Amino acid sequence: MKNELCFGLIGAGRIGPVHAETLAWRVPQARLVAIADLKQPAAQAVASRCNIPKIVSSGAEIIADPAIDAVAICSPTDTHADLIVAAAKAGKHIFCEKPISLSLKEIDRALAAVESAGVKLQVGFNRRFDSNFLRVRQAVVSGEIGTPNLFHIVSRDPFPPPLAYLRPSGGIFLDMMVHDFDMARFLMGDEVEEVFAAGAVMVDPGFARENDFDTAVVLLRFRGGALGTIDNSRKSTFGYDQRVEILGSKGKIASENRYPNQVIVSGERSVYSDLPYNFFMQRYTDSFTAEIQAFTEAVLEDKPIAVTGADSRMPVVMALAAGKSSDEHRPVRISEISA
Amino acid sequence: MKNELCFGLIGAGRIGPVHAETLAWRVPQARLVAIADLKQPAAQAVASRCNIPKIVSSGAEIIADPAIDAVAICSPTDTHADLIVAAAKAGKHIFCEKPISLSLKEIDRALAAVESAGVKLQVGFNRRFDSNFLRVRQAVVSGEIGTPNLFHIVSRDPFPPPLAYLRPSGGIFLDMMVHDFDMARFLMGDEVEEVFAAGAVMVDPGFARENDFDTAVVLLRFRGGALGTIDNSRKSTFGYDQRVEILGSKGKIASENRYPNQVIVSGERSVYSDLPYNFFMQRYTDSFTAEIQAFTEAVLEDKPIAVTGADSRMPVVMALAAGKSSDEHRPVRISEISA
Amino acid sequence: MKNELCFGLIGAGRIGPVHAETLAWRVPQARLVAIADLKQPAAQAVASRCNIPKIVSSGAEIIADPAIDAVAICSPTDTHADLIVAAAKAGKHIFCEKPISLSLKEIDRALAAVESAGVKLQVGFNRRFDSNFLRVRQAVVSGEIGTPNLFHIVSRDPFPPPLAYLRPSGGIFLDMMVHDFDMARFLMGDEVEEVFAAGAVMVDPGFARENDFDTAVVLLRFRGGALGTIDNSRKSTFGYDQRVEILGSKGKIASENRYPNQVIVSGERSVYSDLPYNFFMQRYTDSFTAEIQAFTEAVLEDKPIAVTGADSRMPVVMALAAGKSSDEHRPVRISEISA
Amino acid sequence: MKNELCFGLIGAGRIGPVHAETLAWRVPQARLVAIADLKQPAAQAVASRCNIPKIVSSGAEIIADPAIDAVAICSPTDTHADLIVAAAKAGKHIFCEKPISLSLKEIDRALAAVESAGVKLQVGFNRRFDSNFLRVRQAVVSGEIGTPNLFHIVSRDPFPPPLAYLRPSGGIFLDMMVHDFDMARFLMGDEVEEVFAAGAVMVDPGFARENDFDTAVVLLRFRGGALGTIDNSRKSTFGYDQRVEILGSKGKIASENRYPNQVIVSGERSVYSDLPYNFFMQRYTDSFTAEIQAFTEAVLEDKPIAVTGADSRMPVVMALAAGKSSDEHRPVRISEISA
Repeated sequence: MKNELCFGLIGAGRIGPVHAETLAWRVPQARLVAIADLKQPAAQAVASRCNIPKIVSSGAEIIADPAIDAVAICSPTDTHADLIVAAAKAGKHIFCEKPISLSLKEIDRALAAVESAGVKLQVGFNRRFDSNFLRVRQAVVSGEIGTPNLFHIVSRDPFPPPLAYLRPSGGIFLDMMVHDFDMARFLMGDEVEEVFAAGAVMVDPGFARENDFDTAVVLLRFRGGALGTIDNSRKSTFGYDQRVEILGSKGKIASENRYPNQVIVSGERSVYSDLPYNFFMQRYTDSFTAEIQAFTEAVLEDKPIAVTGADSRMPVVMALAAGKSSDEHRPVRISEISA
Repeated sequence: MKNELCFGLIGAGRIGPVHAETLAWRVPQARLVAIADLKQPAAQAVASRCNIPKIVSSGAEIIADPAIDAVAICSPTDTHADLIVAAAKAGKHIFCEKPISLSLKEIDRALAAVESAGVKLQVGFNRRFDSNFLRVRQAVVSGEIGTPNLFHIVSRDPFPPPLAYLRPSGGIFLDMMVHDFDMARFLMGDEVEEVFAAGAVMVDPGFARENDFDTAVVLLRFRGGALGTIDNSRKSTFGYDQRVEILGSKGKIASENRYPNQVIVSGERSVYSDLPYNFFMQRYTDSFTAEIQAFTEAVLEDKPIAVTGADSRMPVVMALAAGKSSDEHRPVRISEISA
Repeated sequence: MKNELCFGLIGAGRIGPVHAETLAWRVPQARLVAIADLKQPAAQAVASRCNIPKIVSSGAEIIADPAIDAVAICSPTDTHADLIVAAAKAGKHIFCEKPISLSLKEIDRALAAVESAGVKLQVGFNRRFDSNFLRVRQAVVSGEIGTPNLFHIVSRDPFPPPLAYLRPSGGIFLDMMVHDFDMARFLMGDEVEEVFAAGAVMVDPGFARENDFDTAVVLLRFRGGALGTIDNSRKSTFGYDQRVEILGSKGKIASENRYPNQVIVSGERSVYSDLPYNFFMQRYTDSFTAEIQAFTEAVLEDKPIAVTGADSRMPVVMALAAGKSSDEHRPVRISEISA
Repeated sequence: MKNELCFGLIGAGRIGPVHAETLAWRVPQARLVAIADLKQPAAQAVASRCNIPKIVSSGAEIIADPAIDAVAICSPTDTHADLIVAAAKAGKHIFCEKPISLSLKEIDRALAAVESAGVKLQVGFNRRFDSNFLRVRQAVVSGEIGTPNLFHIVSRDPFPPPLAYLRPSGGIFLDMMVHDFDMARFLMGDEVEEVFAAGAVMVDPGFARENDFDTAVVLLRFRGGALGTIDNSRKSTFGYDQRVEILGSKGKIASENRYPNQVIVSGERSVYSDLPYNFFMQRYTDSFTAEIQAFTEAVLEDKPIAVTGADSRMPVVMALAAGKSSDEHRPVRISEISA
């Protein structure tokens, strides 16, 4: 067994540098040998910081490099499917940021290419590797809280993205709640059967002009009968708000936010602490490392991938069902959504 | 101004003894002078414990007693409307357990009698007087958290009632979630426009045989645009679970359960505390006192009642809308529900 | 067995009205039949509020009243011993506020009178009846945390008393820390062997002029070998601070302050809650009821008193040892202190 | 200004590998070029894991290497002073694990060598770099809690070290509490004037045979008048217990332990969470990185060192005073301790 995995990274934008640091410094068996970005200064900045020996301008060059075992795709969503197909054909293992595509057809095309090439694919649902959500998952799997009956996810960003970001994002259900749809399946260990979604514009009227919501709530019914809700907001003034709670037949489990310190001040007017971590970079630092670590080990040791093809597809189906439910103002069954 | 209010209590069942103790011991301006129950031993037991001088067998006798200024109606729900009408005609002020009726026609008949008699009526939505929910309400009213955008109520009983209790109860929306519907209006300071409800049987199959649910979730849309969810379960193994959270434009407010002590043990396998209060008697002790205190003061000092006729009616409308939504499997507008 | 205990209350000052309300409203088997205070308006105000039928001006009149079974002594400390002796001679059971006296000779005289009369005496170490401290005690007794090895008590008042209060109070060790000395024995289930005490004036220089401290720390060594510390301050800006922590061979137990609500606000600059209860009246309400309830039951049912004569004496010995340690700037053994 | 600092590491035992990983992976401006240990397999294991190019067997070889700018001394305490003197003479900057020596004479000799060579020295009081203690320090410096009046540190290891470790360690005050003495000065921003110390053997009788304690409490009096206590235990069954609390004239600040997750389970018998981090490696991971980062920057940018020579000496003085106080059973002034 080879004991090192050589990575090429595609995309030096928002999440690319995070994965670059992880690959360069935090995963002993990973070696980051090349980075690609159309914007060469961005690629160079990351390469310089992380000692990446090779800088190219396109994903194709990464995929064509025989020294590269695996690609990490961090480019815009609309490039993911093509890159996956090309990388799979070239026999590269693939770590791809979520979602593969906003189109189920494209996802299916990508998954088919992966399957026929026999390479490994992992999608960046990093929250599955967070120690909090892992602990919740473990409680469900072990029976610690019995059978899950009720479920509530809170997922709120500290501030809305620029409006220009919204249009290509697919909207709140595909861009933001898709992570929570993954969590719902992961934590409950069951599939959703039906979705009822409601959106609102409470934070910034600009969202309405983009035909998007900044506030959304979804009610889920699982196959096993359990019910659950997810609420999203694009603005939580106190920081990143990422929590989950499950009521089971034997107990309840709930995860709280993470804080930069565990200090409590009792002042003249209140008892207070500093705010929780502000956004995903701080809150999910460890999970970004753990997902790359897991992918690297799965490839090197030929173990199952923690986030399967079905895992990468179903949250998009759920998001599409949520969008349809909101549009048509009625509950929508998952089975109504097809490629 | 008279400085004492003489009460007659109707019903020595579940909640009657609680109000008897409150009237006898905890509200200085209240005097409990008579108790009525068809089951004389129950009435006698309460009378003996609380030094109530007069025991009768019917509400009519209480209402006919000229020494009585106010009646506290704690008998079964299907007797409430008739007792309210009779008491109002007799010029008695009325404290009545929730709900007035499961029928809007009956509620409207009772409210009309109250209005034409010019007496005061307060319905037992005691949670409005709980220090936690009052604090949340205050944060909304004062603007401490800005405009409310999102809302989540958790309300779970420690164990299900006997199945025999279910049929006349009106089901989970009318019997249990009705309190949470009141909270939703009270805390958000807005009216609900539309309801989508989903129920499940996860705790005991007997609920299905009674055409009832033991688990239910409702998604609410408020007139001002805010969204919210309520979840109910008839069984939370760890005790009474009564919490609320509101996300506003300037911050979030959340209330936690109450615990019998503030002790934390760090043991060899976990860091733990004792369970929260087990049920409403312990958890809401103070609010039962506060609601009677408020009613007594409102009558003696001719001040507005904290829970108005509309406040007593609207949660029933919401519960009926939730039932209709669940039955018809679609979102239901509040305006669809009429007497 | 008689099923009612008739009380006479002596002293309508600070704590007197608290016990009056408890006796009048909260302990079913207690009947408060008389109150005494030199200041008649104070006595009248309490009598009126609590429906006490008889008002007198001296403790002697209470003690002479044959209708009275038990006296509750709430007058100034320097009157306690004489009143105890007189009440004991008259065959009355005695509930007396702490401490019996600042002089061990006086305490011993009082205890001897109680013993020879065969009446029951309970001293007002109310914190023993607080649900938090009871839970800690239970953990020690049951072995939940193993053998206690280390111990820390925090006890801080929200604001200092008037300087005029200090001189007759006996100083911080006798007036304030005496409660914590009782807690130390109660919670650890062991006697203290040696005390090292240090005081400081950090809050108000007026304390120095009264030869008193406003800040004090004591290091205790228990007979069984365990060590512990107590810290007191006359000023904690955020409210009454009353906590305890014990490290045992199998775990740790810690009790936190009590709060008026369980609400947490996440604002733009901090995550905060309201302050804990401000002072002993709010914090220890339940324990004031429970101690009188326990005393009443112990007398009526001839059960052992929860706070024995030794329990009332030893904290004063410890306080005297602490004072001596601070004066002589050396550790002082408990055995050095004698009447 | 040079932008990289080349380190040689001396000692591949307990803490050496921690610093090796930090130097190799987490401090961008640091380069770890050599490691020394008499036990070559230990050195090789670390070198292999961290890609350290050069392995030697003695500190002298590290100090003689002209490619090395700074040494990290992680060898046994009794070698520290000689290595510091040699490194200083060779013009190397020095990061040294605490304490420099158990002998003040040796410390003074080392500090004199450092001073005359003009090199920079930082001692490994890593807790100063922990985000919790930094936040507490900041509250004192900024005046957030006013003037500190009272102080309590808890510092407890999860399990005792092997008895063989104890004899050369200098005992609980020098080996364990020395960190807390540093914290006391750091957090209070004041010097201690007097110490009263008490020790006990509660965990393992073997400590008594080694003339050591496994449980110890110290009462401190600061120059500014404030009082404080520290308690240490060699065994806390629930994990590493590292907390601090300061009461100031305007408020209180307290830091809690860190936990691997923020998950709370409400079960049938208790509400519980997993245990806090088990020991210093997990709890203080970030502070180990931060101290090396700070040292590296201080050298490269010629900034003041965060832990000065006085900072490295005074905790040893305090530990010696505590030992003397315990031996002589009396309070000991810091001024009594001299080299």
